[in-house]
Amino acid sequence: MRAAIFGYGNLGKGVEKALLKKTDVEVIGIFTRRKAELSSKESAVPFYDAGDILRYKDSVDVVFNCGGSHAELPKTTPFLASSFHVIDSFDHHAAIKEHYSNVDLAAKKGERLALISAGWDPGILSVIWILSASFLHDSVHTLWGPGVSQGHSEVLRKIEGVKNAVSYTVPNKNAEEVILRDPAAKEKNLHTRICYLELDERADPKKIEKQIRSIPDYFYGYNVEIHFVSNGEIQKNHSAFPHAGKVLAFEKTGTTFSFGLQTRSNPDFTGSVMTVYGLALWEMSKTGKTGAITPADVPTGLLLHDSRTIFDYI
Amino acid sequence: MRAAIFGYGNLGKGVEKALLKKTDVEVIGIFTRRKAELSSKESAVPFYDAGDILRYKDSVDVVFNCGGSHAELPKTTPFLASSFHVIDSFDHHAAIKEHYSNVDLAAKKGERLALISAGWDPGILSVIWILSASFLHDSVHTLWGPGVSQGHSEVLRKIEGVKNAVSYTVPNKNAEEVILRDPAAKEKNLHTRICYLELDERADPKKIEKQIRSIPDYFYGYNVEIHFVSNGEIQKNHSAFPHAGKVLAFEKTGTTFSFGLQTRSNPDFTGSVMTVYGLALWEMSKTGKTGAITPADVPTGLLLHDSRTIFDYI
Repeated sequence: MRAAIFGYGNLGKGVEKALLKKTDVEVIGIFTRRKAELSSKESAVPFYDAGDILRYKDSVDVVFNCGGSHAELPKTTPFLASSFHVIDSFDHHAAIKEHYSNVDLAAKKGERLALISAGWDPGILSVIWILSASFLHDSVHTLWGPGVSQGHSEVLRKIEGVKNAVSYTVPNKNAEEVILRDPAAKEKNLHTRICYLELDERADPKKIEKQIRSIPDYFYGYNVEIHFVSNGEIQKNHSAFPHAGKVLAFEKTGTTFSFGLQTRSNPDFTGSVMTVYGLALWEMSKTGKTGAITPADVPTGLLLHDSRTIFDYI
Repeated sequence: MRAAIFGYGNLGKGVEKALLKKTDVEVIGIFTRRKAELSSKESAVPFYDAGDILRYKDSVDVVFNCGGSHAELPKTTPFLASSFHVIDSFDHHAAIKEHYSNVDLAAKKGERLALISAGWDPGILSVIWILSASFLHDSVHTLWGPGVSQGHSEVLRKIEGVKNAVSYTVPNKNAEEVILRDPAAKEKNLHTRICYLELDERADPKKIEKQIRSIPDYFYGYNVEIHFVSNGEIQKNHSAFPHAGKVLAFEKTGTTFSFGLQTRSNPDFTGSVMTVYGLALWEMSKTGKTGAITPADVPTGLLLHDSRTIFDYI
């Protein structure tokens, strides 16, 4: 598979690491808007201008779109899907259906296959959630964290007056009890979002706090803690990207599922998820299938590469 | 979907319960060798002779083969696959590849689709195992139990001189520690099999014990405890079928997966797994695909029925 990386932030670097470990993958290039700032010492893979990617239509099989979910993917994934098989890890849950429709249209027009939302969540946890929900009818819940939510951090950083920010998601201490007592408990009542922000000197903290608490899907209706910190503190104390998640499902008849995932580096893990799903996408594209798909459309056995077969595991 | 149940032991009853809960399924009949012994009061579904099933070729879409893994499925699943789409929960791990080949040949000849090994393990746990193994390279282990292994119990009950038997699988107390210390730890060194047997009066316990300990794949090489108990004790103390399993995976870079499943009734849970996968099989058969498949070939999204879509979960 000839791969291209589109976007070179934390996620792009995580994808690069994971792709370079695979023997059956050639990484053609990293496409970035910051080519001028990047030195060729930073990667063994050549850097190209993001704007030039269409010139590589015939030499790239799958583009790994590593842009930000909130601001970039809604535009760039449909754009890329019209010329390439493309994979992203779009994580704005409430907007996935809309993103799916836009990508599906573009990919069908371009006769390409596009796999969206292939991260750890949505992605791995969605697959586990669907698996659980298909057998267990009384209660399926996901608990996120404790860990950094990159999607939420990105949303904070786009706010005018915010210089740097990080958003942690933490399940409330009594979350598992609440679920057992009330299978209809809402996700919003099970989690707290803890935000750390560095502001521009002239920014008004009160105004920004009010703005954050009103952002739909991401912060509105959640238990949100907001901390304004001094410059440099985020870089110093909040530069790791751990994350964790748990799917809990049960049925009154006496069956329970519990799936937990913990990772020290969210972008590295998401990078390895995208790599494995990218190879599966490439396999599936060979059947001539076009349009948008999600991890729920990928047979698990297609995730095994390097001559491993399902019979090693079944 | 018009379904038939083939075999009416504990598993057949579990499948019946799960199928009857689905609004989009019609259960045509239960095919059994024990028709003469069964009263029509035992089920609202009509009983037919197992030997008559081919007569229903045109009125059944999917056959749920609920026979014993060790003695029956290797013969009956290929037989059924030549005339019907068929699903089984074949659980003899070491023989799955051979079973797959036989079923694949028969199903391709008959132009039918056959889904094998769709239980909780192999089945759900295999899917989780493959998912884990595709991202995490350093260690993936499955711990089975504590619970009743129906496959192992069946093997014991087929031994001449054995009247009744049950085999429990229990992970050793230090199993998780052993895995963390030694990622190459063998499954045989992580589990104990605890067997309870009632013998015929003339049977020789020593001979039977020796015979059990030499059964390949099932008992040979395992830590096995054998208890001979008095008549009626199994019925009295060992008639429940709980089971549990855990997949543990980790990578040195700091990512861990942990999946646990516990069920009070193994046959009921396996019945609901087979029902959900049976509906997916029926969907997949409509594309014209033929031959044998396993749960690893089924996209998770196909497991959702009753108008639920992946967008409710992603």
